[in-house]
Amino acid sequence: MIKPQTLKGFRDFLPKNSTLRDFVISKLKDTFESSGFDPLETPALEYESILLGKYGKEGDKLMYRFKDHGDRNVALRYDQTVPLSRVVAQYSNDLPFPFKRYQIQPVWRADNTQKGRFREFLQCDADIVGTTSLLADAEIIRLASNCLDRLKLKNYSICINDREILQDYSKDIITTIDKLDKISVDGVVSELVNRNLVKTEVEAKQLISGLHEKKMTERLEQLWTYLQKFGLDKNHLVFQPTLARGLDYYTSTIFEIKIAGYSAGSVCGGGRYDDLIGMFTETKIPAVGFAFGFDRLIEALTEQKLLPILETNSTALVIPFSNTELDACIEIMKQLQTAGINAELYLEPDVKLDKKLKYADKKGVPYVVIIGPDEVIQKTATVKNLKTKQQETLPVAKLPHAIIQS
Amino acid sequence: MIKPQTLKGFRDFLPKNSTLRDFVISKLKDTFESSGFDPLETPALEYESILLGKYGKEGDKLMYRFKDHGDRNVALRYDQTVPLSRVVAQYSNDLPFPFKRYQIQPVWRADNTQKGRFREFLQCDADIVGTTSLLADAEIIRLASNCLDRLKLKNYSICINDREILQDYSKDIITTIDKLDKISVDGVVSELVNRNLVKTEVEAKQLISGLHEKKMTERLEQLWTYLQKFGLDKNHLVFQPTLARGLDYYTSTIFEIKIAGYSAGSVCGGGRYDDLIGMFTETKIPAVGFAFGFDRLIEALTEQKLLPILETNSTALVIPFSNTELDACIEIMKQLQTAGINAELYLEPDVKLDKKLKYADKKGVPYVVIIGPDEVIQKTATVKNLKTKQQETLPVAKLPHAIIQS
Repeated sequence: MIKPQTLKGFRDFLPKNSTLRDFVISKLKDTFESSGFDPLETPALEYESILLGKYGKEGDKLMYRFKDHGDRNVALRYDQTVPLSRVVAQYSNDLPFPFKRYQIQPVWRADNTQKGRFREFLQCDADIVGTTSLLADAEIIRLASNCLDRLKLKNYSICINDREILQDYSKDIITTIDKLDKISVDGVVSELVNRNLVKTEVEAKQLISGLHEKKMTERLEQLWTYLQKFGLDKNHLVFQPTLARGLDYYTSTIFEIKIAGYSAGSVCGGGRYDDLIGMFTETKIPAVGFAFGFDRLIEALTEQKLLPILETNSTALVIPFSNTELDACIEIMKQLQTAGINAELYLEPDVKLDKKLKYADKKGVPYVVIIGPDEVIQKTATVKNLKTKQQETLPVAKLPHAIIQS
Repeated sequence: MIKPQTLKGFRDFLPKNSTLRDFVISKLKDTFESSGFDPLETPALEYESILLGKYGKEGDKLMYRFKDHGDRNVALRYDQTVPLSRVVAQYSNDLPFPFKRYQIQPVWRADNTQKGRFREFLQCDADIVGTTSLLADAEIIRLASNCLDRLKLKNYSICINDREILQDYSKDIITTIDKLDKISVDGVVSELVNRNLVKTEVEAKQLISGLHEKKMTERLEQLWTYLQKFGLDKNHLVFQPTLARGLDYYTSTIFEIKIAGYSAGSVCGGGRYDDLIGMFTETKIPAVGFAFGFDRLIEALTEQKLLPILETNSTALVIPFSNTELDACIEIMKQLQTAGINAELYLEPDVKLDKKLKYADKKGVPYVVIIGPDEVIQKTATVKNLKTKQQETLPVAKLPHAIIQS
């Protein structure tokens, strides 16, 4: 007998989890679409040459690669930005520009799972390709903010910076500065000194305080104006001159969103990257976008109790006492469904009531409708709310009003 | 420069296609959930030993298999039934039984693409695991029918049979009989003779006519009663004693759904398979379910013009004549979005009007709202329906009523 198990870093999403993930995905999709972003889907497998070398050595190492049946070198989707670049190059005549697309698909990385990372995880990206307009930067930030608002997250900060502010610093210094959140000022000071990026601790501290004193660039000031016109709450907006973002492909605006009380890191990051999308074309193609860390988002929403109590999509289980009440139950199931209530019939009429109720309980169905011989004669139904334990017997015609579709 | 291209048999879904696919998926999900089916997601990659040998030699050949970074033999999801079996075995204590789940995920098969087959395609499965109740068979057929009703398909036939009716025939004969639809009676007769499955043409014809004369089993008669109680239209139901279904794991009820006028084949197939799900456990676990062929479904819906004209999720493009009208346009965009209309701002205020309109046209946005200096002064907006070419100027407050959210 083969042991039933999943690979390390890969997850099953059983109904209770999958239902909640679907809830969040549909909120994100609704928000994206309300601002005119359209969905894009790309294949899980691509030519290795399309993906390889685009993510640095680390990326090449973590990418799932193999030879397919035609001896082609292929690789599993590693992110959604390189496929976007390919799509923009491949269908440039068919797409409207600026091209506003969102993409919500899994990506695969053979990463170390001990850091709480997964090898298959969902990415949620939104990007605007083909314009340098600062309005696009503002729209992208507004979109990310709208997503969090739609999910009822309140205490979040959108930390924004302009890569121009960091232009006098070396890549190594920027990478170190980027750790301020994680290892605090002292940690960054030591690292700057230890890596010989500055000569003394004093110099390191001056470097950091010098950054903190930086003023907004003209571009950032204009962005701020747009964001406020777009209706963003000032309290969410933070100018953070020490924000660097690890990736070196950003060219001006960069931002990260942090949720107060959620310490695992930012739930969203993005910015403008004007040199990357053109990798498959002869010309540069400007772009700005963001990615939500879907697992972190779910975690933050769970911690803040913002996910609905929704263990199942089933709202009512219609239970016949025995086979005798089956016909009446079928009619009630149809009636409830017609009224827009997700309803199901218990499929084994002859088992004990106890087992039927246990099914509702285990699945998390909020209402049971029980039909016995009396109910059939009197054309009534006994409905029980399994959360509140309240129970009432009422005419069948009134049943849909007694059940609240979750 | 690397050529931007996809692998043969793999597809990008650009916004226009992806939007339509999303439309169909959401109808299927709604229907599944209205009957109490919950979503399940399993990983793209599994241990090869979990998948291998379950689909016969052909399956093993077409499966994408490779060694991962930990030298484990892994394979890409080939169908959703074997992962379902694994899940049922792995979490048997956590799941409610009967377990009613649907699963809509891509699967991968290195098939011959010349037959119009794809190497990555979406499967849409619904199954009830853990009961032999014939009500489950009826519910599964009702669910498939409800999906087609929800998609407004009308002329479809649900061809139903019971494997018991075919029990006196060898596997080879059943496989040949199964081709009646494709190669007609004459073709089947020749094949039966040529393969020495019967001795003469007369015998072959007798075999076929004998099958046609078969009566429903008791089980099928009871199923028919249930289906009619469940509200299925009699005209959709066809008892087809020659229906065999290729797969040999079915144990009693089998069915296929064909759409009149759509000749590429059935869009849905399923049945009861009581011996398969238990492959990772010590006991047999009964199950009944179906799979929609998503690509065929899309094709049939397209042919019958049942998909909405929905090129984009964007309903209105708000266009400032120039930068001067930007603030007014931002307010209008916010107003429309608040009214529940998917609206976007044209992001480059200073380009020519022609280019702005071209964007709406290429993207397929149904309405443009044009704001010039006069509109700003008079607090009006000029709204144009790009399909009907109708245009009117009206007070901004009345704008949301002039736009129909698609």
